[in-house]
Amino acid sequence: MDFDLTEEQRLLVDSARAFATRELAPHAADWDRDHHFPVKVIKQAAEQGYLALYINEEDGGLGLSRLSAALIFEQLAAGCVATTAFITIHNMACWMLASFADPALKEQWLPRLIGGELLASYCLTEPDAGSDAAHLRTRARREDDHYVIDGSKCFISGAGSTEVLIVMARTGQEGAKGISCFLVPGDAEGVKYGRNELKMGWRAQPTRTITFEGVRIPTGNRIGPEGQGFVYAMKGLDGGRINIASCSLGAAQAALEQSLRYVEERKQFGKPLSEFQALQFKLADMLTDLTASRQMVRLAAHKLDHRHSEASLYCAMAKRFATDHCFNLCNEALQLHGGYGYLNDYPLERWVRDSRVHQILEGTNEIMRVIIARRLLEQDGMLDRLL
Amino acid sequence: MDFDLTEEQRLLVDSARAFATRELAPHAADWDRDHHFPVKVIKQAAEQGYLALYINEEDGGLGLSRLSAALIFEQLAAGCVATTAFITIHNMACWMLASFADPALKEQWLPRLIGGELLASYCLTEPDAGSDAAHLRTRARREDDHYVIDGSKCFISGAGSTEVLIVMARTGQEGAKGISCFLVPGDAEGVKYGRNELKMGWRAQPTRTITFEGVRIPTGNRIGPEGQGFVYAMKGLDGGRINIASCSLGAAQAALEQSLRYVEERKQFGKPLSEFQALQFKLADMLTDLTASRQMVRLAAHKLDHRHSEASLYCAMAKRFATDHCFNLCNEALQLHGGYGYLNDYPLERWVRDSRVHQILEGTNEIMRVIIARRLLEQDGMLDRLL
Amino acid sequence: MDFDLTEEQRLLVDSARAFATRELAPHAADWDRDHHFPVKVIKQAAEQGYLALYINEEDGGLGLSRLSAALIFEQLAAGCVATTAFITIHNMACWMLASFADPALKEQWLPRLIGGELLASYCLTEPDAGSDAAHLRTRARREDDHYVIDGSKCFISGAGSTEVLIVMARTGQEGAKGISCFLVPGDAEGVKYGRNELKMGWRAQPTRTITFEGVRIPTGNRIGPEGQGFVYAMKGLDGGRINIASCSLGAAQAALEQSLRYVEERKQFGKPLSEFQALQFKLADMLTDLTASRQMVRLAAHKLDHRHSEASLYCAMAKRFATDHCFNLCNEALQLHGGYGYLNDYPLERWVRDSRVHQILEGTNEIMRVIIARRLLEQDGMLDRLL
Amino acid sequence: MDFDLTEEQRLLVDSARAFATRELAPHAADWDRDHHFPVKVIKQAAEQGYLALYINEEDGGLGLSRLSAALIFEQLAAGCVATTAFITIHNMACWMLASFADPALKEQWLPRLIGGELLASYCLTEPDAGSDAAHLRTRARREDDHYVIDGSKCFISGAGSTEVLIVMARTGQEGAKGISCFLVPGDAEGVKYGRNELKMGWRAQPTRTITFEGVRIPTGNRIGPEGQGFVYAMKGLDGGRINIASCSLGAAQAALEQSLRYVEERKQFGKPLSEFQALQFKLADMLTDLTASRQMVRLAAHKLDHRHSEASLYCAMAKRFATDHCFNLCNEALQLHGGYGYLNDYPLERWVRDSRVHQILEGTNEIMRVIIARRLLEQDGMLDRLL
Repeated sequence: MDFDLTEEQRLLVDSARAFATRELAPHAADWDRDHHFPVKVIKQAAEQGYLALYINEEDGGLGLSRLSAALIFEQLAAGCVATTAFITIHNMACWMLASFADPALKEQWLPRLIGGELLASYCLTEPDAGSDAAHLRTRARREDDHYVIDGSKCFISGAGSTEVLIVMARTGQEGAKGISCFLVPGDAEGVKYGRNELKMGWRAQPTRTITFEGVRIPTGNRIGPEGQGFVYAMKGLDGGRINIASCSLGAAQAALEQSLRYVEERKQFGKPLSEFQALQFKLADMLTDLTASRQMVRLAAHKLDHRHSEASLYCAMAKRFATDHCFNLCNEALQLHGGYGYLNDYPLERWVRDSRVHQILEGTNEIMRVIIARRLLEQDGMLDRLL
Repeated sequence: MDFDLTEEQRLLVDSARAFATRELAPHAADWDRDHHFPVKVIKQAAEQGYLALYINEEDGGLGLSRLSAALIFEQLAAGCVATTAFITIHNMACWMLASFADPALKEQWLPRLIGGELLASYCLTEPDAGSDAAHLRTRARREDDHYVIDGSKCFISGAGSTEVLIVMARTGQEGAKGISCFLVPGDAEGVKYGRNELKMGWRAQPTRTITFEGVRIPTGNRIGPEGQGFVYAMKGLDGGRINIASCSLGAAQAALEQSLRYVEERKQFGKPLSEFQALQFKLADMLTDLTASRQMVRLAAHKLDHRHSEASLYCAMAKRFATDHCFNLCNEALQLHGGYGYLNDYPLERWVRDSRVHQILEGTNEIMRVIIARRLLEQDGMLDRLL
Repeated sequence: MDFDLTEEQRLLVDSARAFATRELAPHAADWDRDHHFPVKVIKQAAEQGYLALYINEEDGGLGLSRLSAALIFEQLAAGCVATTAFITIHNMACWMLASFADPALKEQWLPRLIGGELLASYCLTEPDAGSDAAHLRTRARREDDHYVIDGSKCFISGAGSTEVLIVMARTGQEGAKGISCFLVPGDAEGVKYGRNELKMGWRAQPTRTITFEGVRIPTGNRIGPEGQGFVYAMKGLDGGRINIASCSLGAAQAALEQSLRYVEERKQFGKPLSEFQALQFKLADMLTDLTASRQMVRLAAHKLDHRHSEASLYCAMAKRFATDHCFNLCNEALQLHGGYGYLNDYPLERWVRDSRVHQILEGTNEIMRVIIARRLLEQDGMLDRLL
Repeated sequence: MDFDLTEEQRLLVDSARAFATRELAPHAADWDRDHHFPVKVIKQAAEQGYLALYINEEDGGLGLSRLSAALIFEQLAAGCVATTAFITIHNMACWMLASFADPALKEQWLPRLIGGELLASYCLTEPDAGSDAAHLRTRARREDDHYVIDGSKCFISGAGSTEVLIVMARTGQEGAKGISCFLVPGDAEGVKYGRNELKMGWRAQPTRTITFEGVRIPTGNRIGPEGQGFVYAMKGLDGGRINIASCSLGAAQAALEQSLRYVEERKQFGKPLSEFQALQFKLADMLTDLTASRQMVRLAAHKLDHRHSEASLYCAMAKRFATDHCFNLCNEALQLHGGYGYLNDYPLERWVRDSRVHQILEGTNEIMRVIIARRLLEQDGMLDRLL
């Protein structure tokens, strides 16, 4: 076993941190306040390869492991959680295209997505099938050499500002096996966008409902064979959970750093906060929980990179653990700042608001527990395989 | 012992709930979004007597006990936390005036404050003396028949929209004994208001820094004798802690009611959420924690009403316990709503944001622990007195 | 509302504390170590009326409210948890006899039970029906003017050292309605006792499995009509939950008192533990949780005394809340004593071991959550009734 | 980074598990009940090399890394926590001798300690210097070619049944720099043993106070130069914390395995416990916490193996995190077993009792927080070094 970053990973971390410090952190509060989606900066991120971290190099990506990608996402998120979270979703969309689409479809779209010329949204969730993706109702009806898509998707990140939609729709029977995956141009006729949802956080990225009314796309826009959509979605979620957990790590890391600065400079009762033992203990637990969260994310990413038979289980555990503990850490950091933590002038309350949704999306943390328990209970000797 | 509401209290609760349902709840989301301070509705509240609940009847108040006032605040807060929180502060300001001011000063201001013609802000906290109120630096210098006030106060609720400021300032020596209390007209010359702070929540009430630059007020505007300010502030805080804890109860009650509705109507995996045992257990714990929080608040209010020697200790425990548990309850309720909980369309995320500051103000919950521990350790046989 | 003890209750508390300090506390460690059931002291408790606290005076009891009884049990438990827990069970058995039995049966047994000449065990739980009492299998078959009982009961407190068994057995159909209640003499032919179970705690009282093999008792030993057993059992449990929660309060109170003494006298790094802020905060939270637990128990007892329609719900909440928090409090107190907390020389580890089972028996705390959630979900407007 | 066991580590784990299953698990309950110190089995462990896992091969040990040793201790502890904990202490004593003693002293004692012919106790803690080891008072006074030792040590594992005592005593000034390390034969004249302490758990190993009254040992029995004792003690504690945390992992692993079996076989309300969602969620969290604890221990062991500048910090975090979470896991597992969890017939309550002390010894978890906070606050840019 080896728990140290490689030299290359250290460099990736350093440059991601530099990018975050320079391009994200100084603007994150403004983007949040103004509900501004920083497309220009996302395109700059593309120049660093950040839009296609774990896409193969032959497909134009950086070809990094999930683990290395997670390290980068963590650093970016320390600069701006909401923007980084969108970047991770864009990465997943690109990866899905790169991994499963025909060469022609890839060629048509992938280079511009990787280069940041186009941005992508991922359309899985529906109003009546939040946690129960296998029962989605959006239909794609085959008509000659086209599919006609009808239905609606909700909570779509980037919607309205993205040019590409990766859409899961039902082409066949009820249940998981009837679902297929499609690339739908964002401006296709019949694609209707709802209003930009007002949210607790993640305000630097738009979230909209999308309605598909008789949207016609060529059969060539199907990604992979019919019936594979759910399989892709689940694979995508494994990685998505690592990614979103990494965004939580970034928020927590930034919150702890900010707290360390604050307790040194803020005085009460004649001495700096850093000398109050109860706060020291709180900081100690914050560091410990951050460290454990990081380990869980890295462990899961490693298992996914090495196609461990229980990789999905590790991803579910990492997502549950890291997003819960890092939210709590951000919330403790807010408390430690007293009234100032409650003001938008300080980033604490934004980190709390932004990281809050990580406990909900990519499968709520309750669904994570369902996944973990199911695996644990269905297999004899499971614990031995997890050593 | 008797744990039941009296008939009169039941009526008070019912009418407060009716007011909250009719006048507050339908608008709370808008006020939050628009940073709108609903002065008009606060004046309507005055008609119900809600601006002077525990002021003596001879002074124009309802003459209720702290306990009855707490019951009313809880119901109002279920309609709008931020507005109710301001109302509790206004009540405290009126109470301070009614309890400690000269008849002339009372007569001049109190009727219009009780009637809602004027609103009041309470000015204690300073940038460098957050939790350490005894070391405040705002000075009131005697000049003949005037005081000249210099200094600055921060986190002042209502500031800029209120006509009356109750100000703690130093007239004498260092420490708690050198502090006096004043009524300063909000439009007095030299009173400067900072910008309306952007905050995580409590957006329906403005919060500003106030700077006093050579503000002259007649000596008759001093409330009580010189040197009594800190005593009044501490007495005010006892009640303030019950009040703010009551606002947390209201948020939690509303969040639990909303959750009960949601789990009945929302279906996942083919059945209503209410049939999932893990959610049932969560709801059970929410009800239990709400009930315990309520008991702690009522216990403290009763002790304050009966001038129990340890009333301050009970208030500190109630504030710590109820604001912590009720925030957690709101946060759990948000989680239970999944993605919808994160949207402004639902009230969950607002309750989370609004109730968050209750763990911080009127003395942070860390200061509550300092207070509790100090009493517990300084007195032999303390536990026996708390039976 | 009124949260103060009456003068009479204060006296009851004081004399219970005196009894506990004199007769229980000095011996509790020995009884625990030696697995000694202190029958002699229990008979002394009878002289104080402690074996029939809430039995009507006409039946020979003290005729106290459940609330007053809870206050007494709390004080006794501070002296010895395990002994007091048995006394509460004996009280419940007496109460069942007093409330539901024919005059003849009462006359035959009750005076000697109240006087401590005889002790009683309560036989409900079965190996295959732990939490699911409605499905118990022990049968009572009518044969002329006798019943013949066959089956087995487990986790029976006092078994082997008690003269009276209150036994729930099936006389009719499956489910709750087929259960009846009987008084079986402990030495009846066919009653077989298992070995004294070795347990984590509660070692001062024996626990045994009891097997009934063709045990014949006269029909006059049936308590109440056939089919009422489950109703009695459930009513008994409401009170039993308050009682056991009170035993947890006693352990927690004693643990907090002991902790306060210890932090004053124990020095580390040159100063008493009481000066370490992190420990102060811990003590503050211990007091707060104890106070909240107490309120929950008293609230439930009051509701039961006044036959509130939701009394069972309150009892379930009180039992869940108080036994969980008080166990944690005892466990924190152990930690605060460091290595000494782990030794039998100090009472901390015994309080942890003794109070641990309160989270399990009289319905596990998971079953409490089932009960709470069921009520909460089945009734519209429930929350309003709980104000 | 690499999170997988090597082939060799897998083999070590498998054989440790086999040893634990065969030699420890079947007897652990008896040893606990009878306060039996299983010296014979410890000698069998010596045959496997388990008494000198991380001693260099040239010194007769297995020469394993701390990480590999931790993997082995975890498996052994799943068989018997108390016995394994003693074995880890013996390992530490051997390591101290091997690392710091003169060749002559090593030759005289080490082979027999490694071979299990002799057992060792580690004597650091004193009654008045529990967490504050730098202020120990036991003195070693030089007299010609001897030292004369006076003082007393408490909480000494194995004391009275071990032949070798590794003793920290003051040879010089006050504070950490005046402490030296000695090997004292357990039967030296003037060594007095207190009674075998009755403890909550760890009953399979004796714990005694040792008093040294004018105990004379040759100067050659000093381990390393004068004044190095505290340095050795601190180094020993780093490893000791990993070891004890590994024992917690073993208990937790065993408790989770046992729980998985139980929920499959135990039925309530007509279905196996495994089908109750609330229990499923609990199991999911247990697995997640165990996995995170394991990662923290392995991370710390790796850092210690590679002499990372912050290795002590990692060890403190691992010890705090793993011992807290694993105790909670064992306690949850007990709860899940209901009444059976409370009986000695099942191992649950023993795991709770045994793992409880791990939160206290090798530095209480409060001291861990002191260590963590101190490092975190004293160094700029610390967080960056911990990536």
